[in-house]
Amino acid sequence: MTGSRHMSGEAFRRHARELIDWIVDYQERRVEELPVLSRVEPGSIRSRLPADPPEHGEPFDAMLRDVEEILLPGLTHWQSPDFFAFFPANTSYPAILGELLSAGLGVQGMLWATSPACTELETHVLDWLVGMLGLPEAFRSTSTGGGVLQDSASSAALCALLAARERATGYASNERGLEDKLVAYASTEAHSSVTKGVGIAGIGRENLHLIETDASFAMRPERLRERIRRDREGGSTPFFVCATVGSTSSNAIDPVPEIGAICEEEGLWLHVDAAMAGTAAVCPEFRCLHRGLERADSYCFNPHKWMFTNFDCDCFYVADRAALIRTLSILPEYLKNRATESGAVIDYRDWQVPLGRRFRALKLWFVLRHYGVEGLRYHVRRHVALAQRFRGWVEADERFELAAPAPLNLVCFRHRGGDDANRELLDRLNRSGELYLTHTVLDGKYALRLCVGQTRTEERHVADAWRRIQETARELED
Amino acid sequence: MTGSRHMSGEAFRRHARELIDWIVDYQERRVEELPVLSRVEPGSIRSRLPADPPEHGEPFDAMLRDVEEILLPGLTHWQSPDFFAFFPANTSYPAILGELLSAGLGVQGMLWATSPACTELETHVLDWLVGMLGLPEAFRSTSTGGGVLQDSASSAALCALLAARERATGYASNERGLEDKLVAYASTEAHSSVTKGVGIAGIGRENLHLIETDASFAMRPERLRERIRRDREGGSTPFFVCATVGSTSSNAIDPVPEIGAICEEEGLWLHVDAAMAGTAAVCPEFRCLHRGLERADSYCFNPHKWMFTNFDCDCFYVADRAALIRTLSILPEYLKNRATESGAVIDYRDWQVPLGRRFRALKLWFVLRHYGVEGLRYHVRRHVALAQRFRGWVEADERFELAAPAPLNLVCFRHRGGDDANRELLDRLNRSGELYLTHTVLDGKYALRLCVGQTRTEERHVADAWRRIQETARELED
Repeated sequence: MTGSRHMSGEAFRRHARELIDWIVDYQERRVEELPVLSRVEPGSIRSRLPADPPEHGEPFDAMLRDVEEILLPGLTHWQSPDFFAFFPANTSYPAILGELLSAGLGVQGMLWATSPACTELETHVLDWLVGMLGLPEAFRSTSTGGGVLQDSASSAALCALLAARERATGYASNERGLEDKLVAYASTEAHSSVTKGVGIAGIGRENLHLIETDASFAMRPERLRERIRRDREGGSTPFFVCATVGSTSSNAIDPVPEIGAICEEEGLWLHVDAAMAGTAAVCPEFRCLHRGLERADSYCFNPHKWMFTNFDCDCFYVADRAALIRTLSILPEYLKNRATESGAVIDYRDWQVPLGRRFRALKLWFVLRHYGVEGLRYHVRRHVALAQRFRGWVEADERFELAAPAPLNLVCFRHRGGDDANRELLDRLNRSGELYLTHTVLDGKYALRLCVGQTRTEERHVADAWRRIQETARELED
Repeated sequence: MTGSRHMSGEAFRRHARELIDWIVDYQERRVEELPVLSRVEPGSIRSRLPADPPEHGEPFDAMLRDVEEILLPGLTHWQSPDFFAFFPANTSYPAILGELLSAGLGVQGMLWATSPACTELETHVLDWLVGMLGLPEAFRSTSTGGGVLQDSASSAALCALLAARERATGYASNERGLEDKLVAYASTEAHSSVTKGVGIAGIGRENLHLIETDASFAMRPERLRERIRRDREGGSTPFFVCATVGSTSSNAIDPVPEIGAICEEEGLWLHVDAAMAGTAAVCPEFRCLHRGLERADSYCFNPHKWMFTNFDCDCFYVADRAALIRTLSILPEYLKNRATESGAVIDYRDWQVPLGRRFRALKLWFVLRHYGVEGLRYHVRRHVALAQRFRGWVEADERFELAAPAPLNLVCFRHRGGDDANRELLDRLNRSGELYLTHTVLDGKYALRLCVGQTRTEERHVADAWRRIQETARELED
C-alpha cells in the first residue's frame, strides 16, 4: 500500500486485465457449466465473510479469490444459456464495455451542464429507437415529447402515474396533496409495479381497478369502458390506464387501439408497458405490437431485458414532456445555471425521481452500433424461432398442454397432471442445476414459463431443456 | 461481423484492454488538462451524430474514436482534481473494477433467490458500515433494522417518507389512498429531494413545512416544536422530520439530538440525510456528526459522493425494517419462491421503489477492502485539511469573507463586492476551464462554494484555485 492509499494506474491496468480474462472465461465457458440456480442456504455466504471490515487495505488478488470461492457459488447465473426464468436480463460485450467506460469517466448527468454529452447522447439514442421500433413521432425529442433512460419499468410506471395524476388534478396534487378520489386501471395480468406505483403516489392500491382479461389474458376493453362508467357514477375520477404489451405472466398483449380509443374519449392518460416485448418491434413482422401506440401518453420498454444491454436500462417515452417536467421539476439555488435558464437544453433530473444519474446511454449506444439494426433483428428472430420450436414440442406431447398463447419468446405450459405435479416438476428441474425456469398461475392453474432471450442460448440449450422436462415428467409419472 | 453478430471473447478482450488503457490515460493525465466545465453549445454534440442508427454493425474502434472526438469535449470532468463544484461524485480504481465485474456477471438481485450472494454481500457490507461510522445498533440487519443500497439520497428520502406515511396512517394510505392531512418538516436548507418526495408521495409540497435556521444554517429545534404545535392545532397530522447532517448549500448540521427528542415526544418519523457528510464519521474525530442518531428511524449517506465509490451508491438504513417492507412489498405469483416464503432471507425488491437491481455491493466491497478503514480515514482527513487551509486563506484576505461556517470539506465564501461581482467572478473562473465551482445563496446573498472531495485533489490544486480566485477578483476590481 503506497502512501496515497490509491491504487496506481499500473496496478489497475494489471487487475483490470485479470478481471477481463476472468469475465471472458466466465461468459464463454464456465457460465454454462455452473448450476443455473444457486444452491446455497440462507446465510451461507455471509458466514464466510469476516465480521469486521479490514483495518488496513488488502491486495486485489484477495478480493478476486473471494469472488471465486465465496461469491460464485452464491450466484444465480442470469447469463447462462440455460436461464429461461422470469424475463431475461441479457447483456453483451459491447454493453459491458459501455458500463466500464461509464465508470471510468465517472461523470454525473443530472443537468445538461454537468456533462452535455451525457444528456445529448441519451436524447439522440432514444430518438434513434423511435425510428427503430416504429414508435409515434410525438415521442421524439424534436416533437412535443421525448425519451429518457430510467432504471426500470417500475420507475417508468411511477413517473407516468405521477404525470397523469398531476394532469388530472390541474397540477395541484403535487402542491396541495392529493384531494380527489382518483382511479387507475390495468388488466389483472399487469405487472405488480403498477400496484406498487399507485400506493407510492398516494392514490391507494385499492383504487387500481384490475380489468378482466379474455382467453388470451389480454384486457377486455368493453369491461374497461364499463368499469370507468361505474366509477364515474360512484363519484370517482378515472385518470390512468396501463396497457401491457407482453405481460410478465404470459406475454399477453392488451388491445392498445381499443384501449387508446377509450382513453381518448374519457380523457385518461394511457401508459403502455412493453418492458419485454417492445424490443421485438425492431423486426417489421413484429411492428404490429405497437399498433395503436399513437394514442399513448407514455410508453416504456427495457433494453436490459432483451436488447443485450445490461441492467439497468429502461427507455421511457412521453408524448408531452411538459407534463412530466412540470410534475418532477425542482430548482434549488445550488442547481441553477445559465444553460438551464436558457431553456435550450434538457435537464434529465426533471424526468425522473432521483437527482443524480450516471452515463447509461453509453452502453446502449455501443450495443446499437455494434449490432446495427439488422443484427438485433437477427437475434430477436432467432429467439422467437427457438421459443416457437419449443412450443411445437409441447403441443406435440400429449402429456403437456400450452397454458397461454405464445406469440413471441415466452412459452407457458403445464403437465396435465395437475398443480402439485407441475410444482414438483419445476422444483426438480431447477434443483438439477441444468436449467432455470419459473412459474406463474393462469386461469387459476399453476403453469411453467420458459422464456428464450438469453444472449448465448442456442437451439441445443432449448432442445436439452425440453428433453430434461420430458425425462423429469416421466420420473414423476413413475 | 461474424454470423452470430455477437462480439467474440477475443475481440472483447482486445477492446477492453484498449479501453482500460484509455481510462488510465484519462484518469492519470488528461482529466487534469481538459477544461473542467464543458464549453460546448447546446445541440453541438447531437449535431455531430448520425441522424439514424446504423443498419449494419460497426467496429468498436469507430465508437472509441467518437468517444474521443465527439463526446470528450462535451463532458464536464467530475473526476478532475480541479472539480470543486456541487458535492463530488468521486470514484477510484477499485470501484471501477467492481462496476466492471458487476456488468460482467450480469446478475439481477431483486430476490435473494435470484442471486443470494448479491443480497448477502450487500447486507454484510452495510452492516460493516454501521460499525465503521458509529451508526446505531438498530440499523444492523441482525437487529430490528437493516441497510440497503439505493441509487441516490433522493430515493432514500422517498422510501423514508413512504414508510413514515404508512406508519402514521396505520398502513392504510398505501391501500386506500391518502386521506389524512399529513405534514412533514425539514429546514429551509434541506435538500430539494425532500420537497420532490412529498410531492410524489401525494402529501403535497406545501405540506412540507420548512423550519427556520440559525446563524450556522442549522434547523432551530424550538421553531420546529412551535410549528408542530400550530399544525396540530390547525388539524393537521405531523408525521415526518428530515434532519440534515451536512446541507448541500453549506454543510450545515442540524441538531439531531434535539430534533430527535422532539420526534420521540411527538411520535414523528425522523430521517437523517447525511448524504455527503456521513463519510466523515469514519474518523473518530468526526463521529460526533452522528450524535443523536439513535433516535432516527432512517438514515442515509452516499459512498458515491465522498467514499471513492462511483455513482450510483447510496446507503439507506432503517431502524424498523418491518415498516419499510410492509410499505413497499408486493408479491405477484411469478415472483413467489421457496426462500421468500421461508422468511429466512431478505428480498431487497421490498426495500426500494424499482423491482430489479444490479450487483452494486461489489464496488463498495472492493473499495472498503482496498482502502481499509485507515485508508479511508487518511483521505477524509486530507480533504478536510485542504478545505480548512483554503478557509484560512479566505479569512486572511480582507476582500473576501466566509459565507457560512465550514465544519468539514466545503467552504462557502464571497467577495465583498456584492452579488453581481460574485456572479461575474464565478462565471470567469468556470469559463477559464481551470477549475469548476458552483454557487448558492446564503442569508439572501450570493456565495461561492468550494468543496474538496475529489479523489485526485492535492494541495497544489487547492492552492492554484485560490491563486486564480484572487487574480480574477483583482481583474474584476480593476
